[in-house]
Amino acid sequence: MKICVVVGHVWATKKEPALNGLKFMVVKDDKSGEEFAAADMVGAGIGEKVLIVNGSTARRAVGADERPVDAAIVGIIDTLEVEKETTSDK
Amino acid sequence: MKICVVVGHVWATKKEPALNGLKFMVVKDDKSGEEFAAADMVGAGIGEKVLIVNGSTARRAVGADERPVDAAIVGIIDTLEVEKETTSDK
Amino acid sequence: MKICVVVGHVWATKKEPALNGLKFMVVKDDKSGEEFAAADMVGAGIGEKVLIVNGSTARRAVGADERPVDAAIVGIIDTLEVEKETTSDK
Amino acid sequence: MKICVVVGHVWATKKEPALNGLKFMVVKDDKSGEEFAAADMVGAGIGEKVLIVNGSTARRAVGADERPVDAAIVGIIDTLEVEKETTSDK
Amino acid sequence: MKICVVVGHVWATKKEPALNGLKFMVVKDDKSGEEFAAADMVGAGIGEKVLIVNGSTARRAVGADERPVDAAIVGIIDTLEVEKETTSDK
Repeated sequence: MKICVVVGHVWATKKEPALNGLKFMVVKDDKSGEEFAAADMVGAGIGEKVLIVNGSTARRAVGADERPVDAAIVGIIDTLEVEKETTSDK
Repeated sequence: MKICVVVGHVWATKKEPALNGLKFMVVKDDKSGEEFAAADMVGAGIGEKVLIVNGSTARRAVGADERPVDAAIVGIIDTLEVEKETTSDK
Repeated sequence: MKICVVVGHVWATKKEPALNGLKFMVVKDDKSGEEFAAADMVGAGIGEKVLIVNGSTARRAVGADERPVDAAIVGIIDTLEVEKETTSDK
Repeated sequence: MKICVVVGHVWATKKEPALNGLKFMVVKDDKSGEEFAAADMVGAGIGEKVLIVNGSTARRAVGADERPVDAAIVGIIDTLEVEKETTSDK
Repeated sequence: MKICVVVGHVWATKKEPALNGLKFMVVKDDKSGEEFAAADMVGAGIGEKVLIVNGSTARRAVGADERPVDAAIVGIIDTLEVEKETTSDK
């Protein structure tokens, strides 16, 4: 589960019909710098820290194996506690 | 879903028969610099920003689990809005 | 199986219902520097070295294919012996 | 689909019985520098540019889901046209 | 199929019951520097060059889809011939 920040939105009018109805956000993994699009399943907003699943697991998140999605936001992080540092996003 | 730019075409005459009929484009992830081939499902053109799926999800995009494809273009990006910067490709 | 160290906890109140009941830890791969969240299946604690599985295999670890989990802690490492160096975590 | 060059051969006498009969080549992704072994399904030769599939898709390429193969050569590239540069391998 | 060298052993007493009976080795990809644990299916020893499969393919190698394994050693490399250089491990 990647720990990312939501940094933007992405719109595609011309797309696979099976993607209709999904909202795509741009997310960024602060550790690796990696940036990609993910289907939002939890109503995440810009600036929020989120949990991401990739690969076939993203299809489980969208609840339909035939939808061509390989990244999905599955949780909004309230608190992230790493070693001696504690970060609250609330 | 990788956010890539279409940068080229690739042709292979000698290939797995199950790949016949697919069009392969070369795409580049500007963030990571990564460049690879992807089956085009949406009629993307050179220079367009696109959404890419990888892995088993690409087989869902081509609609046939037995076709050996692990990357597919599933959407043409109209607008990409990242933080305070907005980019329109229209 | 990634060899990681448990470095923290992560909490998400708003999440996919299928994630309820799972405990998520932050783990770090010391070799690559990569840091991500993983569902803990073995009661791992901060500072312990653990074995991680990713992708569809993490769904096997949580025992339910429809749960959107793509990383899981599946073992606590007692001893890690690498070439001429031996490290015991006991 | 990774775009690689065939750079070598690899032989393993002691191996999983389900790998018998497959030919393994060493391939290199010139962009990333990554080098790995792939089962050759198309009769590729040293120095040829090829299309590679990875992961579960490689098992589709070898036509048997139970064979433990996660990389396969599925096409020999004739022409690779990237932006203003055109490369013909014929 | 990653080309790795076996560099160590790893033991985990507290682990998912489905991992019982498997032997885990530490392997290193010399090209990328990546180091991880893999279930040994072929009796590989320290210092040997091996073929590794990752992801769902590793579950095919261990012969049981429900075992949470995402890396497995499936062959011991005898000879690795890369371009003008030939390396024999025999």
